[in-house]
Amino acid sequence: MHLTQSLHRAVQQRPNAIATIYGNRKRTVAESADRIARFAGALRTLGVSKGDRVAILALNSDRYHEYFFAVPWLGGVVNPVNIRWSPAEIVYSLQDSDTKVLLVDDAFARALPAITAQHELERVIFIGDGEAPAGTLDYETLVSAADPIEDTETGGDELLGIFYTGGTTGFPKGVMLSHNNVVTSALGGAATTDLVIRGGNLLHAAPMFHLADFAAWNLGNICGSTHVIVPMFTPGGVLKAIADHQVTDSLLVPTMIQMLIDDPSVAQFDTTSLRRVLYGASPISEAVLQRAQKTFPAAEFAQAYGMTELSPIATLLTAEDHKRPELLRAAGRAVAHAEVRIVDDAGNEVPRGTVGEIVVSGDNVMLGYWNKPEATAEAIRNGWMHTGDGGYMDENGYVFVVDRIKDMIVTGGENVYSAEVENALAKHSAIAQCAVIGIPDAEWGERVHAVIVLAPGQTATAEELSTHCKTLIANYKVPRSAEFVDALPVSGAGKILKRELRKPYWENVSSGVS
Amino acid sequence: MHLTQSLHRAVQQRPNAIATIYGNRKRTVAESADRIARFAGALRTLGVSKGDRVAILALNSDRYHEYFFAVPWLGGVVNPVNIRWSPAEIVYSLQDSDTKVLLVDDAFARALPAITAQHELERVIFIGDGEAPAGTLDYETLVSAADPIEDTETGGDELLGIFYTGGTTGFPKGVMLSHNNVVTSALGGAATTDLVIRGGNLLHAAPMFHLADFAAWNLGNICGSTHVIVPMFTPGGVLKAIADHQVTDSLLVPTMIQMLIDDPSVAQFDTTSLRRVLYGASPISEAVLQRAQKTFPAAEFAQAYGMTELSPIATLLTAEDHKRPELLRAAGRAVAHAEVRIVDDAGNEVPRGTVGEIVVSGDNVMLGYWNKPEATAEAIRNGWMHTGDGGYMDENGYVFVVDRIKDMIVTGGENVYSAEVENALAKHSAIAQCAVIGIPDAEWGERVHAVIVLAPGQTATAEELSTHCKTLIANYKVPRSAEFVDALPVSGAGKILKRELRKPYWENVSSGVS
Repeated sequence: MHLTQSLHRAVQQRPNAIATIYGNRKRTVAESADRIARFAGALRTLGVSKGDRVAILALNSDRYHEYFFAVPWLGGVVNPVNIRWSPAEIVYSLQDSDTKVLLVDDAFARALPAITAQHELERVIFIGDGEAPAGTLDYETLVSAADPIEDTETGGDELLGIFYTGGTTGFPKGVMLSHNNVVTSALGGAATTDLVIRGGNLLHAAPMFHLADFAAWNLGNICGSTHVIVPMFTPGGVLKAIADHQVTDSLLVPTMIQMLIDDPSVAQFDTTSLRRVLYGASPISEAVLQRAQKTFPAAEFAQAYGMTELSPIATLLTAEDHKRPELLRAAGRAVAHAEVRIVDDAGNEVPRGTVGEIVVSGDNVMLGYWNKPEATAEAIRNGWMHTGDGGYMDENGYVFVVDRIKDMIVTGGENVYSAEVENALAKHSAIAQCAVIGIPDAEWGERVHAVIVLAPGQTATAEELSTHCKTLIANYKVPRSAEFVDALPVSGAGKILKRELRKPYWENVSSGVS
Repeated sequence: MHLTQSLHRAVQQRPNAIATIYGNRKRTVAESADRIARFAGALRTLGVSKGDRVAILALNSDRYHEYFFAVPWLGGVVNPVNIRWSPAEIVYSLQDSDTKVLLVDDAFARALPAITAQHELERVIFIGDGEAPAGTLDYETLVSAADPIEDTETGGDELLGIFYTGGTTGFPKGVMLSHNNVVTSALGGAATTDLVIRGGNLLHAAPMFHLADFAAWNLGNICGSTHVIVPMFTPGGVLKAIADHQVTDSLLVPTMIQMLIDDPSVAQFDTTSLRRVLYGASPISEAVLQRAQKTFPAAEFAQAYGMTELSPIATLLTAEDHKRPELLRAAGRAVAHAEVRIVDDAGNEVPRGTVGEIVVSGDNVMLGYWNKPEATAEAIRNGWMHTGDGGYMDENGYVFVVDRIKDMIVTGGENVYSAEVENALAKHSAIAQCAVIGIPDAEWGERVHAVIVLAPGQTATAEELSTHCKTLIANYKVPRSAEFVDALPVSGAGKILKRELRKPYWENVSSGVS
């Protein structure tokens, strides 16, 4: 299987259908495919060879779509950069992956000096609509000048992309996914339930660098979707795109859903075209679901649970499941292409209802972490990806996530590993000890909260610490609140008891997260 | 991917659902899975090891379902025998595949002496409901006595089964399919269109030895179907099963569909539960489709085109396509998991509308022919399976099959290679030369017709030749009609011009087959 197979099929079966809509720009399948083959040709001329990494740092656009196809067409490896990262994190990922070619748009061209000061790029390609900054190559000029090349038909277990994800050790890890990983995930997801309307209009409101949206994009290609692309999520922009382009499908996180239904302008837009909402990152509350169903009366809701390492879906809570309120706290059941188990520390399956670690096997399990064989061996044992999430399974196979063993916070759909934030905080001279936890947040699901022990004789305010952290980590990882304590609760083995820190915040919240 | 993954998922998610219905016998998923693990244990005790072939010669039953899972569970290789074959053909396939273990039911136990006289079997297991014949092991006794074993989780590119198919050279060829081949085919088929109702009742009216029904069975397992199994196709039996068990899905060939709608008893049965009819082997006429839609008012029709070597689907004509009468002659468009092209003799794609050979690539392409590396190399060139069928593709990717380059006749859903029949005829002393062609038949789509040149001074009747053939080949391959001529039309190169022989029979038939 290869990612570009869906493009060949689209060209064969519906060359005149619309592939992408971005602002006022619409491109047919045939036109888009021609541009992809040309951009692949341009990359080859620039010296990009099979296996080379090509990164992108940009808001969503139709050129992002072309990038996702052109790089594998050439046999290259995609490396979509998290736009919320600090320059330090971006540089780390480009260095770690030895990426020499970067695509950048208007929004991120200003970050270039900070990046190139620390990491040498051979080529920077400007995919914005303004004038290409000095030292960059203009995308449209490259596409016009290049000859289209034949698809290398790179596929199977070959590397398709490196998708960086927050690391428990404080450094992002590059998740290596193959063509088989992501195509299996799409076919298996579609076989499990009706995730996407065939021939519908699929809105990209979530960032395209995220594997979740990439997976939706791939599924859309397989199902003959037209991609409706907005640069980024804004409630008004998304509502307008839904109305203007009769959007039928979208991937959203509950935070986004809530913003849409709460938006004061929502009544001005015709949102009746929306038929499928796939959400992830956290469960949805019954109240939000009911309101969302009023705003989007034709929509069926499905929840996906997974992680980048699983390409990304492991379980699905189907539209049918959503009719049973007691299941709304569940993450769903194993998809058709993966096996899911709950195991104890020895890897043995535990009885139903017993909390253990959620593990997953199947062709969707990543190849491994880039240049991190030890981390790979720790994550994938006997073919089972150890998610680090605690959960239990009921008698009918529904998985309930109850604890994040990896100490991760999910805020507005983004994963934040506490260790990354704690590392940043610890670099502040006033801090003796700290613990970062997720606490409930009406808007973001969870928010990053710091519990701080100051060093003797030192002082610091929450604001000072926030300013300090912003120089080191992405804004969304920076603690939104902090409390100062004399000491942290520790176990007999000296381990910080985060569960005790979380307890006062969570005990009155009827969520599955403890 | 492995075939038994769907079984593990079913046990995890719906252990109390009904897995199989056969006559008055119903088994839950949990019960069926337990029997499968036990039968696998019994086979292991009998000395069957990973990679060993285990054949079955039987009508459809719930034990056929258990066989299909138990053998791969153990790591073995299934070898479902065509029940219409002559003993000589059966013996050939068992010898060719070096099969030592055979399952046989009441209906075929009587064929055992003729088989074992020519091929030594180490074990014969009786899966009928009567008393086990002498020299056979009783299936139920084995299952009761055995301990269940763990799934070997054989999968990926490992061999799942050998599926014998008629050969152009006059001998059946063993098509080797891997786990990935058949699971990809199912996931990709489901991603292409809604082939099977999730959680529905899937009727096995077509013979389960056939890869077409095996593929439907596998898809049903993935989609949570209950298998409703009848021993064999009879119009009354099928109509009764649909009514008795609220059948929602079935795989049929157009000949079967016609028999059902023509059956005098049809009005006595409630056939409104049927929602999906997947048919193959030949297009359906508009008249039959319209009548079928009256008999099955809730049914959507889809046509699959493919072959055993493609696990088996290459193209699908969806329910949506069936709304356009001009498409009813088409075989559909490439499925999500395969690429389909029309090529010339040099392997280059021809322009749309031009007839060439239909070739297919994808993870559904067989591993090869068992013990026939040369035939494999001839069939699969540069990763493309050469179907031997002539066809063209229209501007929207619809494939129209216009000629069977491999000189094959499709009669009642069975493939008959002319060469096999000609070989059998040629063994009759009165025959100097012969050509076997398919001619139109109202009931069977095509029927096998022989054009004969008698040797000087010899005489023979069509009946004599038919009797002669029956000793050598399966009944369905035996010519149903014959004509005697003085000479056969030949090309300059001396090749028999079958097209000229077919012409008078086909010129007034509005079918795509020339």
